[in-house]
Amino acid sequence: MITHPDFPAEPWDVRESGLDLGVLAQSESVFALSNGHIGLRGNLDEGEPHALPGTYLNSVFEFRPLPYAEAGYGYPDSGQTVINVTNGKLIRLLVEDEPFDVRYGELVAHERVLSLRDGVLRRTAQWISPSGHGVHVSTTRLVSFTQRATAAIEYEVRPVDGPLHLVLQSELVANEQLPAMSDDPRAAAVLEAPLVPEQHSAHDAHAHLVHSTRQSGRRVGAAMDHLVDCPADVQTFIECTENTARFTLITRLAAGQSLRLVKFLAYGWSSQRSIPGISAQVEAALALARASGWEGLLAEQRAYLDDYWARADVDLEGDQEVQQAVRFALFQVLQASARAERRPIPAKGLTGPGYDGHAFWDTESFVLPVLTYTTPHAAADALRWRHLTLRAARKRARQLTLGGAAFPWRTINGDECSGYWPAGTAAFHINADIADAAIRLADATGDDRFERETGLALLVETARLWTSLGFHHPEGSFRIDGVTGPDEYSALADNNVYTNLMAQRNLRGAVAAARRHPDAAAAMGVDDEEIAAWRRAADEMFVPYDEKLEVHPQAEEFTDHEVWDFAHTRADQYPLLLHFPYFQLYRKQVVKQADLVMALYKCGDAFTADEKARDFAYYEPLTVRDSSLSACVQAVLAAEVGHLDLGYDYLGEAARMDLDDLEHNTGDGLHIASLAGAWIALVAGFGGMRDSGGSLAFAPRLPEPLTRLTFSVMWRGRRLCVNVTGAEATYSLAGGDPLELTHHGRAFALAVGEPVTHPIPSIKIGSRPSQPPGRAPARRWPSPSDSGA
Amino acid sequence: MITHPDFPAEPWDVRESGLDLGVLAQSESVFALSNGHIGLRGNLDEGEPHALPGTYLNSVFEFRPLPYAEAGYGYPDSGQTVINVTNGKLIRLLVEDEPFDVRYGELVAHERVLSLRDGVLRRTAQWISPSGHGVHVSTTRLVSFTQRATAAIEYEVRPVDGPLHLVLQSELVANEQLPAMSDDPRAAAVLEAPLVPEQHSAHDAHAHLVHSTRQSGRRVGAAMDHLVDCPADVQTFIECTENTARFTLITRLAAGQSLRLVKFLAYGWSSQRSIPGISAQVEAALALARASGWEGLLAEQRAYLDDYWARADVDLEGDQEVQQAVRFALFQVLQASARAERRPIPAKGLTGPGYDGHAFWDTESFVLPVLTYTTPHAAADALRWRHLTLRAARKRARQLTLGGAAFPWRTINGDECSGYWPAGTAAFHINADIADAAIRLADATGDDRFERETGLALLVETARLWTSLGFHHPEGSFRIDGVTGPDEYSALADNNVYTNLMAQRNLRGAVAAARRHPDAAAAMGVDDEEIAAWRRAADEMFVPYDEKLEVHPQAEEFTDHEVWDFAHTRADQYPLLLHFPYFQLYRKQVVKQADLVMALYKCGDAFTADEKARDFAYYEPLTVRDSSLSACVQAVLAAEVGHLDLGYDYLGEAARMDLDDLEHNTGDGLHIASLAGAWIALVAGFGGMRDSGGSLAFAPRLPEPLTRLTFSVMWRGRRLCVNVTGAEATYSLAGGDPLELTHHGRAFALAVGEPVTHPIPSIKIGSRPSQPPGRAPARRWPSPSDSGA
Repeated sequence: MITHPDFPAEPWDVRESGLDLGVLAQSESVFALSNGHIGLRGNLDEGEPHALPGTYLNSVFEFRPLPYAEAGYGYPDSGQTVINVTNGKLIRLLVEDEPFDVRYGELVAHERVLSLRDGVLRRTAQWISPSGHGVHVSTTRLVSFTQRATAAIEYEVRPVDGPLHLVLQSELVANEQLPAMSDDPRAAAVLEAPLVPEQHSAHDAHAHLVHSTRQSGRRVGAAMDHLVDCPADVQTFIECTENTARFTLITRLAAGQSLRLVKFLAYGWSSQRSIPGISAQVEAALALARASGWEGLLAEQRAYLDDYWARADVDLEGDQEVQQAVRFALFQVLQASARAERRPIPAKGLTGPGYDGHAFWDTESFVLPVLTYTTPHAAADALRWRHLTLRAARKRARQLTLGGAAFPWRTINGDECSGYWPAGTAAFHINADIADAAIRLADATGDDRFERETGLALLVETARLWTSLGFHHPEGSFRIDGVTGPDEYSALADNNVYTNLMAQRNLRGAVAAARRHPDAAAAMGVDDEEIAAWRRAADEMFVPYDEKLEVHPQAEEFTDHEVWDFAHTRADQYPLLLHFPYFQLYRKQVVKQADLVMALYKCGDAFTADEKARDFAYYEPLTVRDSSLSACVQAVLAAEVGHLDLGYDYLGEAARMDLDDLEHNTGDGLHIASLAGAWIALVAGFGGMRDSGGSLAFAPRLPEPLTRLTFSVMWRGRRLCVNVTGAEATYSLAGGDPLELTHHGRAFALAVGEPVTHPIPSIKIGSRPSQPPGRAPARRWPSPSDSGA
Repeated sequence: MITHPDFPAEPWDVRESGLDLGVLAQSESVFALSNGHIGLRGNLDEGEPHALPGTYLNSVFEFRPLPYAEAGYGYPDSGQTVINVTNGKLIRLLVEDEPFDVRYGELVAHERVLSLRDGVLRRTAQWISPSGHGVHVSTTRLVSFTQRATAAIEYEVRPVDGPLHLVLQSELVANEQLPAMSDDPRAAAVLEAPLVPEQHSAHDAHAHLVHSTRQSGRRVGAAMDHLVDCPADVQTFIECTENTARFTLITRLAAGQSLRLVKFLAYGWSSQRSIPGISAQVEAALALARASGWEGLLAEQRAYLDDYWARADVDLEGDQEVQQAVRFALFQVLQASARAERRPIPAKGLTGPGYDGHAFWDTESFVLPVLTYTTPHAAADALRWRHLTLRAARKRARQLTLGGAAFPWRTINGDECSGYWPAGTAAFHINADIADAAIRLADATGDDRFERETGLALLVETARLWTSLGFHHPEGSFRIDGVTGPDEYSALADNNVYTNLMAQRNLRGAVAAARRHPDAAAAMGVDDEEIAAWRRAADEMFVPYDEKLEVHPQAEEFTDHEVWDFAHTRADQYPLLLHFPYFQLYRKQVVKQADLVMALYKCGDAFTADEKARDFAYYEPLTVRDSSLSACVQAVLAAEVGHLDLGYDYLGEAARMDLDDLEHNTGDGLHIASLAGAWIALVAGFGGMRDSGGSLAFAPRLPEPLTRLTFSVMWRGRRLCVNVTGAEATYSLAGGDPLELTHHGRAFALAVGEPVTHPIPSIKIGSRPSQPPGRAPARRWPSPSDSGA
């Protein structure tokens, strides 16, 4: 059994009160700091022990060949892997000749606290060296949200008794030695020594290194400067070689004295700028950080987060674990995206090398729904990144003999990196997911300029993809054959319901956007005939239905397939893809992750309430949740059809994915989409928020243990607050013009200063659907582990 | 445009009257000699120039890693590649200091003739060296059918004028340098220096080399000995290093004198025997060859072939090109299989490294039908090879969580080597193809012992595979979902008609064989319950039918898919798989090779005559024949439904595949299955022979240009001869008990010495079906290139 750190359920902190080296990888991911541009894994300051050292810059990657046993036309030749850049987190300590290393001597106390309000990682340790000398170490680390290129560390050490000789070494290290990765195909490939030295320089307490990647042409600069604060004499010197810069401090402290070091770090990269250009860039960032000072950086960080929490916080009563988890989740969503600025939001954010650092449909389908209503500028930036990659997507579409743009299944720079096309290229729904995110963002912000400059092109090019991908069957329907839906345990099926409905939404969104921006659309070559073709394809879109079973098949034929032999599948055979061939998975009724159920959520208007209930009940016993992208969607649908307790269990799974390491791979990086799913489960699930129709609808209803749920959403510049209890929901508006909303299907108007309260209607609940044996979500309530009920 | 040698249409020879270095690769394949154990490509005696030097021993391969961009459970880790073993064909000539090299000096004349009756390759050349010295060279090469380990070469050289100094070097060369291969994924991977030297020895005119492969543990011995015949003084010496043995002759010939060298070659390999064991083995073979002498080897070869042609020859009037081609085809089928003896029959035989030297379903589906009726012991040996690989096939089935045995899609040693599972592992029909070959062979030979010892286990284990692969749908049918049929432009479809019908035949065959051999079946754990389960699966086998179009879909949904845009597909975009992604091919109506039409042939009893006509007409415009395995099957069905001219065109394509290099890849090796298809097109097509029901039925009908067709089939030890003209067919029996046959649906009895003649009924022919634009087979008649009409 894999253990995980026990983080006590505190509302605003994630606290680890001991140090379990067996779960170091997970804690490095959980305690990672990032602003979406720089990512620092939660490695110990002294570098070792580590599970996986990690310092990442968004979009700094290296190419690697993609090999094929049997190659085929259109297979990508090269992949991309996020690389570990110059490590600036390192501060090593020598206590009377003995390196501070928690594996030796005695670690009397060790605590790490991630403060979700302050946006810093604090660490305190008390250690007795093998020769018996005790020190207190306390450090604080931040990656600045306000100064994109900047990170900083405050490091304080004092003797328990005194006097003690102490040496500190603060370093920049490029091309760190990395441990070998696991055999799990999902774990990232490792590239050794990816950085070619180009420049190194040091003086006083200051140093910088410039490197470039070999193939991808990324030039990376890293710089550090230091402030020293010590009552005793301190000798310092600095040294620098191609791959290592080291600032050394030597002092002798009496009892009660302490040495405090503030380390400012700056990072920059470019595929265009020169060595002097990059050097100057990181020096400028460093100058700004020094000018702000440590306290200034802390204050800016807190102010940035105060502002965020005012918009984004989800406050609830009745479950402290979920409370903590959803705030942790919202913090990580922010860390992954805040300053990504027209760069991708990878599936793991910048918390680890999992999935090679690639971005998937996770971004648009899970992360952007949260950002759209809490941090819309970050959602817009993520879509602007997609817009920047349109050229690559158009080229890929041509290669696939398709029209418009075919966005990659997985990528860093916009080129397809999937080496297994049935679960990559064939998953064309990603194009509709991107279009959908653009539609929802435009609806939520009313940002006409964004739609004209960014959304329209995304919609037009993806609409063109769909009309070339599907065809009008002689009998009248528009069919999309041979594609792969969200469920990765099926592939290459005809008329996947999720794909077809999302394509329909995509086509209609393109029609509407082209009508709203006729000049811009005309400049893209859109004419009335093309718009009519989009409309016709949307109107005739085929949605298969199994008349006998009275459910929607995930795709044609699905419900005729044999049901997976769950009874003879052992618990240790999950995830199934590591123990069974795709061949068997694809041809049977077994669902890795919400697919048809995802359609019930994202395209809910296409289904009646009865259909939703029947469909949900049909797919529950088939869905094994071998993907972290499933539980939150199941939570939403469970809540909608009235299985509130089941939805509550799924909420718990989505929210605690990484804090409880439920998939045993948090060490590779956090599951950013599942974390976003915690918000989705609460707001779309128990808040019942839907936004498909261009306006907001709510149908809140709480599971019994949650006695209150309060959340805000940003809608066209206004903050709408929703406060739900078991009996009623109160809506209030923080500013702007009145708003038309819906509560459980009934429209109402909401004006500033005039909160509206509606009762929550009761719902008739059928029997709780079952899941495959052993695959039910952990029961949260009633449950002995329930800390909040 | 790729050219090809022009082989004049001679009935028993394949003659090349010049040497076009641009098509050397093709001629090396066409002039390859083999007995199924040893294969020598038709390289020039002097080694260079060459397109691809090749010396192969059946089942001498090396492992190579199969890389995956994204690996998955059950993917094979290692592949197998046939290797070029020690080259013993080399005889180099020096004419007054100048190497005989056709690229230099002047090649006055050059002719090569493959004699299909003698089983030898003869070459004559007249060459003038750059310094003006002329020589006549004439050589004869054979790979012995009667002495499995033996090849031999007679080399004769004489000055045009004289006197001349001549040096001959006869060599064994291991680890020859090979040219880089093409990027075409179908071309074989090359392994450099695959042989590790273990022993070398030389004395007098005699030498041998022993090597082993690095990973696969194949120990290979090659030995040579020589006879020299010359009126002038000849100095000889021999030298030997690890990788090269060289026998050198030096002489000075006057005009009219000639030097004649006979080189005896012996090969042996083993994965078990020691170095002395292998040495002794090749020495013994060499001793036997020497004892037979050159003339003896020639005589044995001719006698062996006389016997073969007496059984196997197809004699026809009206088309000399087809006459030549079918004899060339039958010769090559014999070369690929005669002495394979419980080793595979690779797709390319031993004529080249294409497809890595792997065996596919080609063996059972195309080659064995010919061998079954001409050389049944070779067919039995090929199935015994499958039987020997049952352990690996059972293991593979377990890995795929299936019952019984899952034979590999491509292999040399029995382990799956396919690195692309949708077109490999998923093509489960290969198991039914193997079973079908066993059933037909048992029917044709009545060999009870073969069935009990070999056929039964193949049938039982494949029947077990099918019952675990399919399932009984709640509505009553037995479905086999998510498999790939013969057509490689579709994959992972439900209820492929060919697969389901062949599985049905497999299951019924297993029932019958288990009933015939109850003790042997019981020893395999077969009980009444299992037999009942096979019968039930067969009886309930689902065969989809499109009621609206009144045709059988190749697999469910197929006829609902979009038809490939043939109108916008350029001629240079064929074969489609090199210019379009699988993604597009799989989801559209486009057929690489006969699939449903293959079912019409192999399982003809499952279709009415009208259905066959409609189905054939439906699939013709969709079938692009990007596989060499298609034309012969289309020929058979075209003939059956009455499109005799079309069938005649397809016959031409199948028969001339390699002589005319129709797929531009004959250089990698011959298309043994397509060559076998020439026989199939003639015997099953225009002879109308069917053997599904355990007895023989004929429905002969000739296209107008063929005025007579005569062929024989071996049936339970008797030779049945069928002579067809435009108006009637005459059946005669060469021995044994009387036989019940069918002529155009009417049963009749045939006894020895009492030939029976039946008239050929007329048939109503609909309009000739069309093929995709540009993909119609070349018209043979009426046509200017038609040499026979």
